[in-house]
Amino acid sequence: MKAKVIITLKNGVLDPQGKAIEGALSGLGFAGVDNVRQGKFIELDVDASNEGEAKKAVEAMCEKLLANTVIENYRVEIV
Amino acid sequence: MKAKVIITLKNGVLDPQGKAIEGALSGLGFAGVDNVRQGKFIELDVDASNEGEAKKAVEAMCEKLLANTVIENYRVEIV
Repeated sequence: MKAKVIITLKNGVLDPQGKAIEGALSGLGFAGVDNVRQGKFIELDVDASNEGEAKKAVEAMCEKLLANTVIENYRVEIV
Repeated sequence: MKAKVIITLKNGVLDPQGKAIEGALSGLGFAGVDNVRQGKFIELDVDASNEGEAKKAVEAMCEKLLANTVIENYRVEIV
């Protein structure tokens, strides 16, 4: 089963990468851009007999490795 | 308007970061994980009068800065 994981910084956590993108966009002439936040996107195939089991497995992966749960949120989607 | 951009490597482009995640997951005891690919996720607010205009603006940003269209695909979603 294919899983998609989106990992984003929690609100209030400083995002220097997002700020850099915001500055670069404004330097390129894109006006009206604000609140740029960069996160991670991970796609993977996981062996599981059903959707619930796959989701549980990928959530365990997020907790253990993929996301830093102190400063990041994650969202798992099974497709 | 809030826009979400997902940037992924094109098929066939080597993804060493994905391979590293795959190796680390298997080292942690997660079996049956395959085809791990890592991409980027960017959220931003953009000034636009309607959804179509916002999408066009963000697509232009992707072409010019956010994505390397030689090796990456992007998908824009206005929410």
